[in-house]
Amino acid sequence: MEKTVTVSAPVNIALIKYWGKRNDKLLLPLNDSLSITLAQDDLRTVTTIQASPDFPTTCLWLNGREEDVSSPRLQNIISGIRNFVKEKCGENIPGIFGWHLHIVSTNNFPTKAGLASSASGYASLTFALAKLYGLDEENLSVIARTGSGSACRSLEGGFVLWNMGKKEDGSDSSSVQLFSHTHWEDLRVFLVVISSSQKSVGSSQGMLRCRETSGLLRQRLLSVGGRKEDLIEAIKRKNFEQFAKLVMQDSNEMHAVCLDSYPPLMYMNDASHAVCQIVHEYNSAIGQTVVAYTFDAGPNPCLMMQESISSDFMGLLEYFSGVMKNGTWKGIPVSRKYPSDELLSKIPSAQSPKPIPVEMIISTRIGEGPQVLPQDSSLIDSFGFPVIYG
Amino acid sequence: MEKTVTVSAPVNIALIKYWGKRNDKLLLPLNDSLSITLAQDDLRTVTTIQASPDFPTTCLWLNGREEDVSSPRLQNIISGIRNFVKEKCGENIPGIFGWHLHIVSTNNFPTKAGLASSASGYASLTFALAKLYGLDEENLSVIARTGSGSACRSLEGGFVLWNMGKKEDGSDSSSVQLFSHTHWEDLRVFLVVISSSQKSVGSSQGMLRCRETSGLLRQRLLSVGGRKEDLIEAIKRKNFEQFAKLVMQDSNEMHAVCLDSYPPLMYMNDASHAVCQIVHEYNSAIGQTVVAYTFDAGPNPCLMMQESISSDFMGLLEYFSGVMKNGTWKGIPVSRKYPSDELLSKIPSAQSPKPIPVEMIISTRIGEGPQVLPQDSSLIDSFGFPVIYG
Repeated sequence: MEKTVTVSAPVNIALIKYWGKRNDKLLLPLNDSLSITLAQDDLRTVTTIQASPDFPTTCLWLNGREEDVSSPRLQNIISGIRNFVKEKCGENIPGIFGWHLHIVSTNNFPTKAGLASSASGYASLTFALAKLYGLDEENLSVIARTGSGSACRSLEGGFVLWNMGKKEDGSDSSSVQLFSHTHWEDLRVFLVVISSSQKSVGSSQGMLRCRETSGLLRQRLLSVGGRKEDLIEAIKRKNFEQFAKLVMQDSNEMHAVCLDSYPPLMYMNDASHAVCQIVHEYNSAIGQTVVAYTFDAGPNPCLMMQESISSDFMGLLEYFSGVMKNGTWKGIPVSRKYPSDELLSKIPSAQSPKPIPVEMIISTRIGEGPQVLPQDSSLIDSFGFPVIYG
Repeated sequence: MEKTVTVSAPVNIALIKYWGKRNDKLLLPLNDSLSITLAQDDLRTVTTIQASPDFPTTCLWLNGREEDVSSPRLQNIISGIRNFVKEKCGENIPGIFGWHLHIVSTNNFPTKAGLASSASGYASLTFALAKLYGLDEENLSVIARTGSGSACRSLEGGFVLWNMGKKEDGSDSSSVQLFSHTHWEDLRVFLVVISSSQKSVGSSQGMLRCRETSGLLRQRLLSVGGRKEDLIEAIKRKNFEQFAKLVMQDSNEMHAVCLDSYPPLMYMNDASHAVCQIVHEYNSAIGQTVVAYTFDAGPNPCLMMQESISSDFMGLLEYFSGVMKNGTWKGIPVSRKYPSDELLSKIPSAQSPKPIPVEMIISTRIGEGPQVLPQDSSLIDSFGFPVIYG
């Protein structure tokens, strides 16, 4: 009698940052943003939803813990999808529409990775509900956006643009794929998790503080659109040098605006800056911009480079990180070349290297959008409750 | 036969930062800046100049080391003063004008304090030359500026405004005293030296990089004039709360612009940010903005507060710094009150305090401009060479 769907959705990393909302309830941004979707092998949320006439109420389990379903952002998603269904079906609303839901959602990545799981989480919830109710062609990104802004970019694979839109109701603030994940296949992504005891202000609160207090944010909003256009062109041509410079500049600009808020927001720390410095010094030593970094609202660098560079550069980073523990490296295996004396002599930071406290490196690449998973991936058991593992 | 003058000149700390030049040779700034001159008891440069018909050449000793006199900035000062003399005296140029000089200059503050000694150094050189040649009424700041921009602000005591000026030749880019050092007598200043192994890009190179690459600098230049006006008003009324907020915002804005340059310039480090955080948390705990910070192009905070606060706040800072070595505190003695449990409970950073590596704290106040010192202060011995101390 019951109906069950299981889906997965990816994490995304913004290259042109979403930083600042023009509407705090509808999660409408102050600027267009652009992201890459990461491969789901190492970073994804899986969500199973079961609808049954036997469930007395709707329940939600996140990463093994039952959570309150009354949160406004969760309700935004559920009611958004239900409105789509009503519009589509008119009088012929299916019986399942009246049934309560059991929702089970888990991430396959460690929470200490400092990755915002809200993007993949709300994207997978939105996608699962749409599949449950048989929606196929609608632009779901306007729904996912109302859970977490950046979730709208996790509904597509490859390179994704979130158009800020102009309408008051947010109906045109949605995402679109610019290039698929196969467009630039040798682009590699490394999420470097550096240990940090610093507590940071959450993104929503940080964005609000910036909008209210940063004088410099205005200038960013005047120029970020042009940078986005330039970045699309660089991606189209696979011009890494241009790509890298624009990505690093946008990240630095966002963090500059954070530092300009009152009181100032500092998401990056000394280790973050040490990685930036090594990237710039390496590029300068090579005589070409071959490595790029970007930082979300936290201290962990996301590094991008073409595959041909990764052995050299990640070997250099490992040199600065000292001996790594077992399990530091996750994801796609990457050989690391111990840096040559010649290379080290060209890296000023290597003259008196300060160790960079790296906890984990996730080696990955650009990947696809949400997927429907086969029945045996279900996170819900035959009693309608979360599968208990191990 | 010879003539000797000995003078001292103070250090100054910018509250509205000088950051960016419109003319790199004439050292003309992109914006007006505003500073406080610090008391000379603990922070000053003393310069003795002797002119003698017996000297075969002009020589310079800085902090005990003979230096090259051909540096463009030194020559700017010497020729600038000589032009003033020529203008003033016309045909009646004194005989001394043809004599070579021995110049001896020393700072009384440790170089590791990270203080830019160029301001007090070029100010004292300019002032000493002017006294040697009998100049009294000229605005010497246009000359001192050509040695080091911020030196023009060290020619006055108290609160000093450097007007950027409009003329191409820089003749109107000069400083003026707004309020004397007695205007706000209970204002206290603490220079906190935190240990750092980070090498930083020098100010001149940093300013150039910002002007060439920071998109956000433009916005700063549009708004910094208004902030300066507001700050003058706050100083006039001795409104500490307003004063503190504007000073912190200007410092943060300058460092934001630095972070926005390409490659980014990071002068502050984790310890700097930890001090900022403690300042904001303390202000928040007190319910009023009673402490302010400002940072030049380096990691060391300069803290300002009214005398009534200093025992409480510096006691709190000492709590975070752990046990201090002998000799950490220099300058005006300050009692430090060990923070109460009630205060600590209101300071989030105190919940799991990370030690802040403080190397030295110089406790000082606002002070006077350059002084002519008595003959027995001379740094030149009876043979015309630097006095050798113990």
